[in-house]
Amino acid sequence: MMSYEMARKLVIGECNVALSKINEYKVEEFINMLFQADKIFLIGVGRVKLELEAFAKRLFHLGFRTYMVGDITEPAITDRDILIVGSGSGESIVPVAIAKKAKKFGGKIIHIGSNSQSSLAPVTNLMLRIPVQTKLYREDEIASKQPMSSLFEQSLLLLCDSIAVMIVDKKHIELKKLWNYHANLE
Amino acid sequence: MMSYEMARKLVIGECNVALSKINEYKVEEFINMLFQADKIFLIGVGRVKLELEAFAKRLFHLGFRTYMVGDITEPAITDRDILIVGSGSGESIVPVAIAKKAKKFGGKIIHIGSNSQSSLAPVTNLMLRIPVQTKLYREDEIASKQPMSSLFEQSLLLLCDSIAVMIVDKKHIELKKLWNYHANLE
Amino acid sequence: MMSYEMARKLVIGECNVALSKINEYKVEEFINMLFQADKIFLIGVGRVKLELEAFAKRLFHLGFRTYMVGDITEPAITDRDILIVGSGSGESIVPVAIAKKAKKFGGKIIHIGSNSQSSLAPVTNLMLRIPVQTKLYREDEIASKQPMSSLFEQSLLLLCDSIAVMIVDKKHIELKKLWNYHANLE
Amino acid sequence: MMSYEMARKLVIGECNVALSKINEYKVEEFINMLFQADKIFLIGVGRVKLELEAFAKRLFHLGFRTYMVGDITEPAITDRDILIVGSGSGESIVPVAIAKKAKKFGGKIIHIGSNSQSSLAPVTNLMLRIPVQTKLYREDEIASKQPMSSLFEQSLLLLCDSIAVMIVDKKHIELKKLWNYHANLE
Repeated sequence: MMSYEMARKLVIGECNVALSKINEYKVEEFINMLFQADKIFLIGVGRVKLELEAFAKRLFHLGFRTYMVGDITEPAITDRDILIVGSGSGESIVPVAIAKKAKKFGGKIIHIGSNSQSSLAPVTNLMLRIPVQTKLYREDEIASKQPMSSLFEQSLLLLCDSIAVMIVDKKHIELKKLWNYHANLE
Repeated sequence: MMSYEMARKLVIGECNVALSKINEYKVEEFINMLFQADKIFLIGVGRVKLELEAFAKRLFHLGFRTYMVGDITEPAITDRDILIVGSGSGESIVPVAIAKKAKKFGGKIIHIGSNSQSSLAPVTNLMLRIPVQTKLYREDEIASKQPMSSLFEQSLLLLCDSIAVMIVDKKHIELKKLWNYHANLE
Repeated sequence: MMSYEMARKLVIGECNVALSKINEYKVEEFINMLFQADKIFLIGVGRVKLELEAFAKRLFHLGFRTYMVGDITEPAITDRDILIVGSGSGESIVPVAIAKKAKKFGGKIIHIGSNSQSSLAPVTNLMLRIPVQTKLYREDEIASKQPMSSLFEQSLLLLCDSIAVMIVDKKHIELKKLWNYHANLE
Repeated sequence: MMSYEMARKLVIGECNVALSKINEYKVEEFINMLFQADKIFLIGVGRVKLELEAFAKRLFHLGFRTYMVGDITEPAITDRDILIVGSGSGESIVPVAIAKKAKKFGGKIIHIGSNSQSSLAPVTNLMLRIPVQTKLYREDEIASKQPMSSLFEQSLLLLCDSIAVMIVDKKHIELKKLWNYHANLE
């Protein structure tokens, strides 16, 4: 069996390359859109959904109004809101269908994915590209030795948490005070 | 605002240090316990729960029987099963209560956390320690400049996905064939 | 404020009428399809999803292999499986999209809804109709004095639990033994 | 196999008896507490949790701030909030542990259950009793011919939806306008 040392270096190494390939100007534009939005909706499937939930939770702690599509207490989307769609291929049927519907209500669409020429492209206001291999490998994507779309999901969490660090800095948030807004029934 | 470059280097750098501090022999023992288990249950709260769900999903793809505690179709735990408890502090009341209950049914307890002297210690069969700062900072933990327990949650995902890479190697799994077992209603 | 007595009689009365309007032969056909299926997938949104989850959980206790679409450990659907779609109007975009995809893999589609002439009709193998008012009121539906689609959701739970009673009878299950298969980490 | 007609009459008949045994003054006190609360938290496990989620969703539509414990964006509980605990036996370990914790923060506890002399009793401000059989049968409970705790779960949904009807009446809500607040990404 491969050693743990080799495995962790492989994972961290791939993440490091992937994060370094993300366009920093798009990241800043993304953050500006978060600050201008009234409400932030998020949608994804599988492990991508889980990492978006982690982002939704952190954004909520930082003072943003965030909702996963399908949440128990999901409100209606309006033209002052944004929908963040996580989908490597940009072809997952549910996210695509929801993005088109959100567009009809005037919501702005941010696509975090690897494929910039997907079914989501026509409705996307901003694409934040993590150029790594997902289900369908394309030539301009970074290949991974990890199973399935693991690298995309890891990069998604680390990108979103990097953005959280930037927001903490921008809002001059004192880290110690953050726990006050955290759920206390744990 | 801090630049994206600075933020991603901070995040990746902290993850790299955290992963390198995990005991490799414990990782191997953990993998052996996974292979010997009949069923694998997982529990955590908040973002820790989300990363454990990502692990449960990947383990399922790799051929293991995994269940989040509280799942719609969660079966009964027996003495041939293991419960993986994710909790930095080891003091979250729900995971602690569930771990004690699982112990009564003979389940083996694996604690992935940062605090080795917690309420979970008396029922734990194996502790996999990620020695990073969580809610309550202790002297033997790696400090983080990220909000709250972000570093623990990131390390948890990357550790579990490193383990997935090791399992793929150990089982001689062909990565391309993995998609056959993946949900196809997406 | 309306008295509790008046409110509960209104609710129970409406449920009683709704359940009595469901075609009993279709109910039996539905049960036969459940017994013939290898795996049972379920999908719905909002409160309908919640009641389907309750059904999935009960069917699991009764010995069926059930999965909510989107579950952590959802397997691939095949032509030996069925997909139960809960949707009053039959027009919810996600369930419709998933039903069409399931059809491509050969899965049989059961629609539990109120509108028999919806977008789901072309892919439906069996429709179990609860003819009550949902979002869009149609002439052949039973009107309700309750908010939104409450009556549909209540009828859905009570219909599914009536079916559970019939299955218990058909399988000669001893009720006391059922708890053995129930999750024990609660 | 039992006929559908017999099964639905059994289910509706049991629900009718159960709902009629609930103390109407306690129901009104419950509604008053809902109106006085700042935020409403809810917790339960298994199918009970699902029915509480259905209630949380409906209360949200009716203008209340509701949160399931464990939700992605769950805020901190304070002494102006209430926690609704659904548990037939009043002995489920997670709800009991959470109720005790909520009490420490000054939250008011409402227990909806069947057993009035449970571990929850010492921390409960109001008990709304549905006196039906759950896991452990007690003499003062209504027996059920349905599997497991089905009758409790059904009664819970129908009770909560009866309360929703009373709230609609009390707040003079126009039913048609309710859809405006409903999630529109479906």
